[in-house]
Amino acid sequence: MLGASGVEMTIAVSEAGGMGALAAGALTPDDIVEQSAAIRQRTAAPFSVNLLVVRPAAPDGATVAAAMERLRPWRERLGLEAPPTPNSFAPDFDDQFAALLRAAPPVASFAFDLLSRPQVEALQARGTLVVGTATTVAEARAWAALGVDAICAQGGEAGGHRGEFLKPGPGSLIGTMALTANIHAVVDLPVIAAGGIMNGRGVAAVLALGAAAAQMGTAFLLSDEATISAAWRDRIETVGDDPTVVTRAFTGRNARGIDNGFIRDMRQDEDHVPAYPVQNRLTRELRAAAAEAGESEMLSLWAGQGVSLARAGSAGDLVQRWWEEARAASREVHERTHGRGDLRR
Amino acid sequence: MLGASGVEMTIAVSEAGGMGALAAGALTPDDIVEQSAAIRQRTAAPFSVNLLVVRPAAPDGATVAAAMERLRPWRERLGLEAPPTPNSFAPDFDDQFAALLRAAPPVASFAFDLLSRPQVEALQARGTLVVGTATTVAEARAWAALGVDAICAQGGEAGGHRGEFLKPGPGSLIGTMALTANIHAVVDLPVIAAGGIMNGRGVAAVLALGAAAAQMGTAFLLSDEATISAAWRDRIETVGDDPTVVTRAFTGRNARGIDNGFIRDMRQDEDHVPAYPVQNRLTRELRAAAAEAGESEMLSLWAGQGVSLARAGSAGDLVQRWWEEARAASREVHERTHGRGDLRR
Repeated sequence: MLGASGVEMTIAVSEAGGMGALAAGALTPDDIVEQSAAIRQRTAAPFSVNLLVVRPAAPDGATVAAAMERLRPWRERLGLEAPPTPNSFAPDFDDQFAALLRAAPPVASFAFDLLSRPQVEALQARGTLVVGTATTVAEARAWAALGVDAICAQGGEAGGHRGEFLKPGPGSLIGTMALTANIHAVVDLPVIAAGGIMNGRGVAAVLALGAAAAQMGTAFLLSDEATISAAWRDRIETVGDDPTVVTRAFTGRNARGIDNGFIRDMRQDEDHVPAYPVQNRLTRELRAAAAEAGESEMLSLWAGQGVSLARAGSAGDLVQRWWEEARAASREVHERTHGRGDLRR
Repeated sequence: MLGASGVEMTIAVSEAGGMGALAAGALTPDDIVEQSAAIRQRTAAPFSVNLLVVRPAAPDGATVAAAMERLRPWRERLGLEAPPTPNSFAPDFDDQFAALLRAAPPVASFAFDLLSRPQVEALQARGTLVVGTATTVAEARAWAALGVDAICAQGGEAGGHRGEFLKPGPGSLIGTMALTANIHAVVDLPVIAAGGIMNGRGVAAVLALGAAAAQMGTAFLLSDEATISAAWRDRIETVGDDPTVVTRAFTGRNARGIDNGFIRDMRQDEDHVPAYPVQNRLTRELRAAAAEAGESEMLSLWAGQGVSLARAGSAGDLVQRWWEEARAASREVHERTHGRGDLRR
């Protein structure tokens, strides 16, 4: 939810009885501390902070030059000059992590890679519950072995970046239904199910699977508090059937979003773009300019497979509505499965 | 469930209160009539017959020769002679359909392509309810426009062949959670959810999503009535984490199964193998010989993403157990969502 969920959404969701999540992957250390403090000041409810575990990148000049050249047609289309080669490609994770320890939020979640065991323990010593994101059973086992407090099972439906870190690719696209059940069966930790959960029916469904909680992202993209660009919002509001694809063209890491011209044009090259965070950094100005220009054909329109079910409203009202829907759905299923003595009709 | 669900499983499931399904895609017209009659004789409960909508194939000689050559190393490994070029590649669908009309089962389901409207109406005139298999919202709309009675939503988790017919490929791998919700939202027909449903928790989950029923295949593969080879069964019993992939190497149509040597060796060629049913026919003897020899590295080990949760037992006992589990799961979710007045803790 980078670029979509900031302080306001986090507070709104937590105040409504959900657990808001601050997408902190792109924040400076100071911002992590300050925004966490701002949330704490305005709600007494639990909230979480999400970081992306990214190793420092030092691509060679030729790699960067080739990647920049691939993007030239798009820069020209938007009237942008070639920018100088960046000095750094992502915020330093160790600095972010140190700031997170100072902020000590009630919950911290991580994606893209594992923490070290001392990092997990340092957070827990500060009273922070640690959640690891897994796209496969093997990844869930790896997080569990580090002693984390819960697993986020990121199903294949989910929008945005894939958390995959052991075997990136199609094998790490496991549907939420199967992934939640599989992880619940073998890992003795609470499972937070993510991917394709768009309303209270989805919440009730993952609770039935044994999940401890439902994690929703795409479902909030049309909320008042979502900080996405107008072009991204417009595309979601007018989206057709079956609109999403997985691509690594924008950032060098597989991510699910609404298909568009950039993804299609880059399809033949996408296996060759430099890995995250390099490609992510190199397309940053392009994406910002595209958002500014309302040019959604080259914007990263992250969204999950349930995106057509996204609804507008305040984030807090959505949370309350989904909970009422979950109650209604659970009542419906309870009546249906208890209305007769056995299965035969 | 071709090769896995025959007369015995169909009867066992229907007698237990589920709705058994006869996998009839490879049956002769006479077998369709006779096996349907045999089921009817032994149970008064509803059952369904599943057919695959396959157009006649007439590949040119060079295509067949190239495909045969690709398989040579595997024939040699199994000590098989090169077989003569087949005269036909699949049972004639029109003949199968005519037999189905005579058999007039309570329910008939179809995958791989659409029926014509007169075909749908002919079945309905015989009292048969018609179910169309969809892997995307667009496919569900296409079936609905033909006037069918229900949609089977085949989520990306599902084992065996993908039903995809509009845009085959990754875009037609939509997780069961999202696909069920998406189709339920826009198509005014009962939705039968399939893919990743391995036990009663999964059944309760898809009912919560709004599905009218849960369709389970992989969950039956270890049942007493499953007619799969010993090698296939062994691999399921000893399967590791995250074992499945989608491949078209075996049959020329995307299908999900347990990864093995044949799939890996054919990975670079799989886009070039002739489309179903040609490749399916050309690998038939190989797969039969591999099953005979217990050589699971070149057997099509169809299975869904939840396969590690498959359990042994009689199919009827499994159905009853899943229903009890579904009742327990729905009670649990009902209590959890109704135990307090609002969402805040």
